[in-house]
Amino acid sequence: MRRGRVMLVEFDSDILRGNPAGDPHVRRIPVWIPPSYDVEPARRYPVLYVLSGFTGRGRMLLNDNAWSPSLDDRLDALVGSGRCGEMIVVMPDALTRYGGSQYLDSAATGPYARHLVAELVPWVDANFRTRGTREARGVAGKSSGGFGAITLGMKHADVFAAVACHSGDMYFEFCYGPDLPRACSVLQEAGGPRAFLEAFERRPQKGKDDFLALNILAMAACYSPDPVAELGIALPFDLATSALRDDVWARWLEHDPLRIAARHAEALRSLALLYLDCGTKDEFHLHHGARRMTRELTRLGVTHTYEEFDDGHMNVPYRYDTSLPMLASALGA
Amino acid sequence: MRRGRVMLVEFDSDILRGNPAGDPHVRRIPVWIPPSYDVEPARRYPVLYVLSGFTGRGRMLLNDNAWSPSLDDRLDALVGSGRCGEMIVVMPDALTRYGGSQYLDSAATGPYARHLVAELVPWVDANFRTRGTREARGVAGKSSGGFGAITLGMKHADVFAAVACHSGDMYFEFCYGPDLPRACSVLQEAGGPRAFLEAFERRPQKGKDDFLALNILAMAACYSPDPVAELGIALPFDLATSALRDDVWARWLEHDPLRIAARHAEALRSLALLYLDCGTKDEFHLHHGARRMTRELTRLGVTHTYEEFDDGHMNVPYRYDTSLPMLASALGA
Amino acid sequence: MRRGRVMLVEFDSDILRGNPAGDPHVRRIPVWIPPSYDVEPARRYPVLYVLSGFTGRGRMLLNDNAWSPSLDDRLDALVGSGRCGEMIVVMPDALTRYGGSQYLDSAATGPYARHLVAELVPWVDANFRTRGTREARGVAGKSSGGFGAITLGMKHADVFAAVACHSGDMYFEFCYGPDLPRACSVLQEAGGPRAFLEAFERRPQKGKDDFLALNILAMAACYSPDPVAELGIALPFDLATSALRDDVWARWLEHDPLRIAARHAEALRSLALLYLDCGTKDEFHLHHGARRMTRELTRLGVTHTYEEFDDGHMNVPYRYDTSLPMLASALGA
Amino acid sequence: MRRGRVMLVEFDSDILRGNPAGDPHVRRIPVWIPPSYDVEPARRYPVLYVLSGFTGRGRMLLNDNAWSPSLDDRLDALVGSGRCGEMIVVMPDALTRYGGSQYLDSAATGPYARHLVAELVPWVDANFRTRGTREARGVAGKSSGGFGAITLGMKHADVFAAVACHSGDMYFEFCYGPDLPRACSVLQEAGGPRAFLEAFERRPQKGKDDFLALNILAMAACYSPDPVAELGIALPFDLATSALRDDVWARWLEHDPLRIAARHAEALRSLALLYLDCGTKDEFHLHHGARRMTRELTRLGVTHTYEEFDDGHMNVPYRYDTSLPMLASALGA
Repeated sequence: MRRGRVMLVEFDSDILRGNPAGDPHVRRIPVWIPPSYDVEPARRYPVLYVLSGFTGRGRMLLNDNAWSPSLDDRLDALVGSGRCGEMIVVMPDALTRYGGSQYLDSAATGPYARHLVAELVPWVDANFRTRGTREARGVAGKSSGGFGAITLGMKHADVFAAVACHSGDMYFEFCYGPDLPRACSVLQEAGGPRAFLEAFERRPQKGKDDFLALNILAMAACYSPDPVAELGIALPFDLATSALRDDVWARWLEHDPLRIAARHAEALRSLALLYLDCGTKDEFHLHHGARRMTRELTRLGVTHTYEEFDDGHMNVPYRYDTSLPMLASALGA
Repeated sequence: MRRGRVMLVEFDSDILRGNPAGDPHVRRIPVWIPPSYDVEPARRYPVLYVLSGFTGRGRMLLNDNAWSPSLDDRLDALVGSGRCGEMIVVMPDALTRYGGSQYLDSAATGPYARHLVAELVPWVDANFRTRGTREARGVAGKSSGGFGAITLGMKHADVFAAVACHSGDMYFEFCYGPDLPRACSVLQEAGGPRAFLEAFERRPQKGKDDFLALNILAMAACYSPDPVAELGIALPFDLATSALRDDVWARWLEHDPLRIAARHAEALRSLALLYLDCGTKDEFHLHHGARRMTRELTRLGVTHTYEEFDDGHMNVPYRYDTSLPMLASALGA
Repeated sequence: MRRGRVMLVEFDSDILRGNPAGDPHVRRIPVWIPPSYDVEPARRYPVLYVLSGFTGRGRMLLNDNAWSPSLDDRLDALVGSGRCGEMIVVMPDALTRYGGSQYLDSAATGPYARHLVAELVPWVDANFRTRGTREARGVAGKSSGGFGAITLGMKHADVFAAVACHSGDMYFEFCYGPDLPRACSVLQEAGGPRAFLEAFERRPQKGKDDFLALNILAMAACYSPDPVAELGIALPFDLATSALRDDVWARWLEHDPLRIAARHAEALRSLALLYLDCGTKDEFHLHHGARRMTRELTRLGVTHTYEEFDDGHMNVPYRYDTSLPMLASALGA
Repeated sequence: MRRGRVMLVEFDSDILRGNPAGDPHVRRIPVWIPPSYDVEPARRYPVLYVLSGFTGRGRMLLNDNAWSPSLDDRLDALVGSGRCGEMIVVMPDALTRYGGSQYLDSAATGPYARHLVAELVPWVDANFRTRGTREARGVAGKSSGGFGAITLGMKHADVFAAVACHSGDMYFEFCYGPDLPRACSVLQEAGGPRAFLEAFERRPQKGKDDFLALNILAMAACYSPDPVAELGIALPFDLATSALRDDVWARWLEHDPLRIAARHAEALRSLALLYLDCGTKDEFHLHHGARRMTRELTRLGVTHTYEEFDDGHMNVPYRYDTSLPMLASALGA
């Protein structure tokens, strides 16, 4: 079997330079080059951007595991067996100090959507033999990466023509809501977001509550930045009184794919592929959001593919075996 | 040490007869008679009603445990050592098929508040040598029992003059909110509330999710009965779509002690004792509610005692060692 | 339905007076008196002794639970429905500071087997209208109580003619072996058995590791007392080096029902009933022991009844619904 | 900072060809080349072999994680900061279908020790500018990799002069013993080792019990191969009766570093560095083994470095920050 190869691009981002969270502007971005690339020098390829989940970055998609192939091994197998057409696959790094950026522009983390759309996409088109058209460009991801994919599909349908959203964040009341009280406790006990974050970074071993609180802090950084608040982040609860802040929560909901699908209906209808799935035992209750979303998409007249699978939220990269061939096909690979 | 004695009263309730949930109207209610009762035949005593938590009834307060005294043993020790005055202690049974009644009147479970106030209290006064005045009558409880105690203190301050609320349900967004998504999943998978309940009752071993879903179902039965809904219970989410139902939730909030304290401020100010505590690691996040409540009570000019302790929600009956002497003293024991 | 009644006997034990663990010699022992007892004054009854599990004593069998009847309620239902003959049921208290005595005589805890056989049995026969014969006397229990029951059936078959052993401790390598390393860690960290025990007793909240270590300490107190060791207890590992002590372990194995069945084969064959069961998911791996035991009993020509049920170790008192009628029948009730 | 680079060597092993477990004989082996390698063409380097833990292979050491550097990033940082001398670092792949080989020769898995010592080491010396002497060759690892490292240090001290054993498998009674009963249950329920293994491989999601049973099966494959048994593996218990098999267990103990240290004392004394550590909260109880080992090494006159750290078994690659500089120094880097 001919394998593709992975190039680890060291990308120096102008757009991320001086980002407010102090994260690096130089990122190592893996690019999977399909097997025929080096032997068919005139051929041009569609491009798929695969977005990592929370706490992840592109390199993590290549992590080795004895029983679950890394994304490059998975692509080798799919393409090698003829089940999937050849694409260039780019694995961006939008990781932040908070564990993620949700692939959004935020005054608290940085302009990560802009970095992807206005900087990385053109660079890839300029440096690889891509087709360079919207019709041959897709975006996929799982969890926060799924959120990123469907959000980019709504807001940048001029850039991406195919979207796969695996177990993506949506129906925020169900997926984030349950964690707010515990996050509030953890942040209070730590002495506030900054003290929490610094202690978190120092701790060699991070626990379950650490990630729960970090996740809520990160979502606040992405959805409700606030220049006058500590770390530039408005939390959805008042740390002094534990009272929920409806005004902040309303800002979160402005990013809930389920809430905003209707206003992006035209963009969604323009997609060549919109693939959506979720596990029926999702520990973050995302199957409720996925079910509501497929219903909403249908109501809006958005053609899409919806699947449920009998599993939870973690360790489900095998779902790419389903979406990658569909993406390749939709992108004309 | 002289011990008190426990009488197990078989109480035939007119008010609970034919209750909508089909629960028994005959209840076995333990009454702890203090040591001097039988030797001082002219003496009259204050009465304390101790309300059990969710899934409990009065008899459960007597359960034996190698390292945690039952309520009667605890009273024996407190009274025997002189740390607590003598009271008659009544342990009502307001258990329902759903695991509890929150000591409220509900069209889905039955008139449990009325049973307590209009039936049990007079019966106790008629059948034991109680003082029979509001000033000598108190109510205490933990968790759902704490909710019951403070709610009775608000709504029936003419009946009870002293209240102890241990780890009581309040700030519903924090204490019930996080369980809604999972409860929605469980009830959907079971095929609805009735199917869930019947399967629950058949299962010899009940699991964590069982109790989580039962709790939400019970709270709905208590807070949002609805004659046209299955089992007469409106759920705070739409089982068909998983969407939250704001109208139902608003009915729940009408029972949140934190929300309604202001409108019962006068009643609360009339109490001889209002004792409130919570563990700082409460797994149901009740410490947030307790902290908000003490702040609210202070704002309303309600004199009260507030304590926090370094523990969680479960297995904390030792807190009665603190509240019982205060209650006895407030009731003139 | 006619109910039986529970007498709570305050038993002052000569044999337990001055026991080495400093536990009380006065015990409150519930005795369930069957419904006909008070109306048929000439009738004599078989007696069943029901032995509690680790951390338990007789009163705990009466603990109330919303969905699992207490032993008295269970007897009321079984006898009331005619499924079970009438017996007097005695619920001994052999609890110690260590959480149990395994119903054995031990120099570290006290002479609990002797207390049962030489003191409690005669007292019951003297104070209740029992038949007073071995043929009308049985013993049952679950977990450590199951161990006690089968052990008494081996060693005191002259006293008991029927035995029910639910999920009883046996095949010690499998049921205790896995906990030795963790118990060793916990005891080392606590500063030894005495320091552990005193801290355990002080802690209001006891955790999983606490009970794990207490259990191993208790078993050592029962199986390998040693007058020169701390607390009079030889542990199966050297606390200084963590090395296993084969000599101590060999003493434990001398109490393993599986190991000693052969030498008590005649006693076992003399039983009118030997009932044995275990859950197939027993968290202490006792199903392995139970399976080996039924095989061994068959090899030894011991008639017995063996059942497995689809459940774990905890919360299985419903198994008494199966064994109680068989015991009553075997005892001629 | 100058970085080293990772070469992913595709190694075609003669020795592993046709191995009994049917695992590939072509392995992808990462080799970290230090920063100066390409700019100092005459320089020769010590070599360190880093052995993965159970379920791992060399590539896994490079896995990306947001807060825990991969081994190459860790080496870049250590070498770049001057805290660690430059070495070539080889990350072997001795993974098998069972999750590992313990870096031993076994008739059930294959000749993995021989592959390392007789094939990989010479190949590395032939293809990289290594010093090529025993004095400049070390081996390190964690968990099963730590076991491999110390075992190679005992049995192949002619090949390796420095050893670091992090949280290594030893004191088998404590580290494997507790898992035998559960593994026995899981294998019985699956219908034997082969059926278990095939079901395991099919299941997309592997659970805690899966890995527990796989681990015991793998250890049996490594320690007690048996040509006449199913899969060529003798288990330490009889699957038909659940009885422990002392003969098989005795074969396991022949591989326990703690048991066999004395007979390899001379080899151990010949090492330039023997570094040993363990977390004080090791979930596999390995701190007991480590403490016994340091005591045994001292008794045998083996100079070594022993450290404990306040952590458990998982997610402790930061321990390499301590051992790598010591290894580099001992190897003359």
